[in-house]
Amino acid sequence: MTKIPYKIYLSEDEMPKQWYNIKADMKTQPAPFLNPATLKPVTADDLKQIFCEDAVDQEMNKTDRFIDIPEEIRSFYRMYRPSALVRAYCLEEKLGTPAKIYYKYEGTNTSGSHKLNSAVAQVYYAKKQGIKSLTTETGAGQWGTALAMAGAYFDIPIKVFMVKVSAEQKPYRKAVMETYGAEVIPSPSDTTETGRRILKENPNTGGSLGCAISEAVEEAVKGDNCRYVLGSVLDHVLLHQSVIGLETKTALEKYDIKPDIIIGCVGGGSNFGGLIGIFAGEKIQGKNNIKFIAVESSSCPSMTRGLFAYDYCDTGKMTPLAKMYTLGSGFIPSPNHAGGLRYHGMSPIVSELYHQGIIDEARALTQKQVFEAATLFAKSEGILPAPESSHAIRAAIDEAVKCRETNEAKTIVFGLTGTGYFDLAAYMKYNSGELTDIEVTNEALEAGFASLPKID
Amino acid sequence: MTKIPYKIYLSEDEMPKQWYNIKADMKTQPAPFLNPATLKPVTADDLKQIFCEDAVDQEMNKTDRFIDIPEEIRSFYRMYRPSALVRAYCLEEKLGTPAKIYYKYEGTNTSGSHKLNSAVAQVYYAKKQGIKSLTTETGAGQWGTALAMAGAYFDIPIKVFMVKVSAEQKPYRKAVMETYGAEVIPSPSDTTETGRRILKENPNTGGSLGCAISEAVEEAVKGDNCRYVLGSVLDHVLLHQSVIGLETKTALEKYDIKPDIIIGCVGGGSNFGGLIGIFAGEKIQGKNNIKFIAVESSSCPSMTRGLFAYDYCDTGKMTPLAKMYTLGSGFIPSPNHAGGLRYHGMSPIVSELYHQGIIDEARALTQKQVFEAATLFAKSEGILPAPESSHAIRAAIDEAVKCRETNEAKTIVFGLTGTGYFDLAAYMKYNSGELTDIEVTNEALEAGFASLPKID
Repeated sequence: MTKIPYKIYLSEDEMPKQWYNIKADMKTQPAPFLNPATLKPVTADDLKQIFCEDAVDQEMNKTDRFIDIPEEIRSFYRMYRPSALVRAYCLEEKLGTPAKIYYKYEGTNTSGSHKLNSAVAQVYYAKKQGIKSLTTETGAGQWGTALAMAGAYFDIPIKVFMVKVSAEQKPYRKAVMETYGAEVIPSPSDTTETGRRILKENPNTGGSLGCAISEAVEEAVKGDNCRYVLGSVLDHVLLHQSVIGLETKTALEKYDIKPDIIIGCVGGGSNFGGLIGIFAGEKIQGKNNIKFIAVESSSCPSMTRGLFAYDYCDTGKMTPLAKMYTLGSGFIPSPNHAGGLRYHGMSPIVSELYHQGIIDEARALTQKQVFEAATLFAKSEGILPAPESSHAIRAAIDEAVKCRETNEAKTIVFGLTGTGYFDLAAYMKYNSGELTDIEVTNEALEAGFASLPKID
Repeated sequence: MTKIPYKIYLSEDEMPKQWYNIKADMKTQPAPFLNPATLKPVTADDLKQIFCEDAVDQEMNKTDRFIDIPEEIRSFYRMYRPSALVRAYCLEEKLGTPAKIYYKYEGTNTSGSHKLNSAVAQVYYAKKQGIKSLTTETGAGQWGTALAMAGAYFDIPIKVFMVKVSAEQKPYRKAVMETYGAEVIPSPSDTTETGRRILKENPNTGGSLGCAISEAVEEAVKGDNCRYVLGSVLDHVLLHQSVIGLETKTALEKYDIKPDIIIGCVGGGSNFGGLIGIFAGEKIQGKNNIKFIAVESSSCPSMTRGLFAYDYCDTGKMTPLAKMYTLGSGFIPSPNHAGGLRYHGMSPIVSELYHQGIIDEARALTQKQVFEAATLFAKSEGILPAPESSHAIRAAIDEAVKCRETNEAKTIVFGLTGTGYFDLAAYMKYNSGELTDIEVTNEALEAGFASLPKID
């Protein structure tokens, strides 16, 4: 048999020309979004007040299995894609496992994560529609950076509301966005009504993602030909991220590799949904029986401890309601350095796939478990991973260790979503032994559930 | 003609199995190193007290054109190499130039630069020799990080003396090294005689690369089966870095691309020497007439304003003397954010090639010129470049703009040595308009030249 190379790259000819829309294959569709004012299913027109037209059309599309990737987006993709599918030979050796471990590495672009896959698509569609500027929010900073990069390329002004405490803790993330020409506003700010109200109530608040979303939406709605863009959760974001899974599938097939397990970290679900997308679609069709494992932070365990219910997507309750696994929009996660996994809900598609049993397992990990795996991975594979991605690394290592015990040569694929170059304060704490695990309390869970809307 | 892809990757079969030793092709050899005590040419035995055996043998080797890369090193290389040769289509479009611009991108590994190419080789040879630990110095931090990564992989303890002001300004660089298990000691320290002496003379000093080198060498010489490793300047480092040029050549030949100009930034010269190596060797043999341009910082202009003379490699005058372009080991560069280009001397091989006219041109740039180019590059090609690498970017852009004016479709290749993810304080200054150019004064140049040893 051909020796599998360390890194499998696709040629430009082999790169996907279409995204994969899993809804066309789902036997039960995700429940529709509800208009927060009427609690009736939202219409495309409702959504087009906030989001770009093409994004909304993709959001509503349940029938087209494949959707063309416009040439302008494919051209941008060629700058930083295809990402490598890497055989983790060195990690396997370190673990002494018969398992074969692969990771799809999305971290080589400057945003440091997979977020760029959807940022470029959303900015392109805004440009095509003649939108004059875009707003968004960012917590850890990857999404804001990705959007700033895409904005610079397509020459669309970007305004990023960045959770204030993040902007203060990660001035360099802010600096990257500004280098790409984005305007970064620590949130809450005095530039929006929501921001002013929150600052009046609580002048010393460090802000929250929920508040930043509310400010960004308000700004988009009141702006001149301005729209809001979101980096995860929504169906059209998962559509754009399907490029990860499609590339992975082509790369595996080139060497006739059949995965037994696919693992990804989940915050809002866009990376995991994108990675498993095409494989999950084939599983629905009975073409494979791959085990899918979603790994979340035990500080924000929406899949393992949440409810499958209608909820708001933001804490400000301005956005449509989605049926999803959720801890309640009022849930406050316990402290954790994986900023990208601190979302109270979960992508409706991922939620529905989990509910249907297509996604086999959700698993919650503590940050100490995660940083232990991150450090082992960095030392053996050379890449310093993001804390978010390291959730998937830990689960992959745990599965590989099981294989050592049972002497099974399973093929494990996981998503390495990004690098940890802007997370070194967390690594410093781990290195010095100061990193602690703070469990979610029952009180926090109850408070979260109490914030759920009463519907049905 | 085949359309050139955005990124040219080599398969594992196409990756170099041997390094290229340009000295085998040089008509005049670089002058020998001199023992600082006797001012006689150093012997291999002299050097083996400080450096690893294989490194010294490679340093002295003038005859073998190609030297095998051991399988263990090739295996490590496969983790992060081959690096892509990227066609800068988007930059070309932004510039409106008929020039074809390519860059060899060495920044995707976690050390963020090409330094890993030599780090892994030197650590491997230390392991093979049974050396128990290694010391080195680092300024900006790329070399220290690269060595820490290689040390973690081959399980060799690494002690890094990091210029104190850098350790304070870049705590995250220090954190990366510590994550990889290296011990990082801000220099000057109280752990060496040199450090204690300097601290006594000047308790508030922020340290210097020269001082850190002296501490690392002292520690290696007095240690138990310990050796010192250097990340640039020396012939064996250029040998290891020849992998950059060899990969570039194979990638270009796959698409029948013939470069007219090759550009690299120069600090100690290892990246530039490695990039042009095989091409310069062929130029010596009359097989091409490529124009080679070395780009340095105007804060430390060894090639454009230095002398071609024997000088110490460190400010502490503990190391052998090399004949090179130098500003004098006592030269103090003017402030500049390109920490990797603040070395007073230049690789003896690069110096000799420049002296012989094989390297056509050296060019010095100010940091404002450089950051302007860095920002344009980031916005058009997506990658946030290191300030050092951005010297090459600026020169490439300037050449491409000339092509626009003369309507020549020249092929320009430059080395993109690394990323700027740990240089964001500098980008912040540039973004806010606070970055200033501080010219080297005649007094600084005179003081540097006055520190040159009197020889001949």
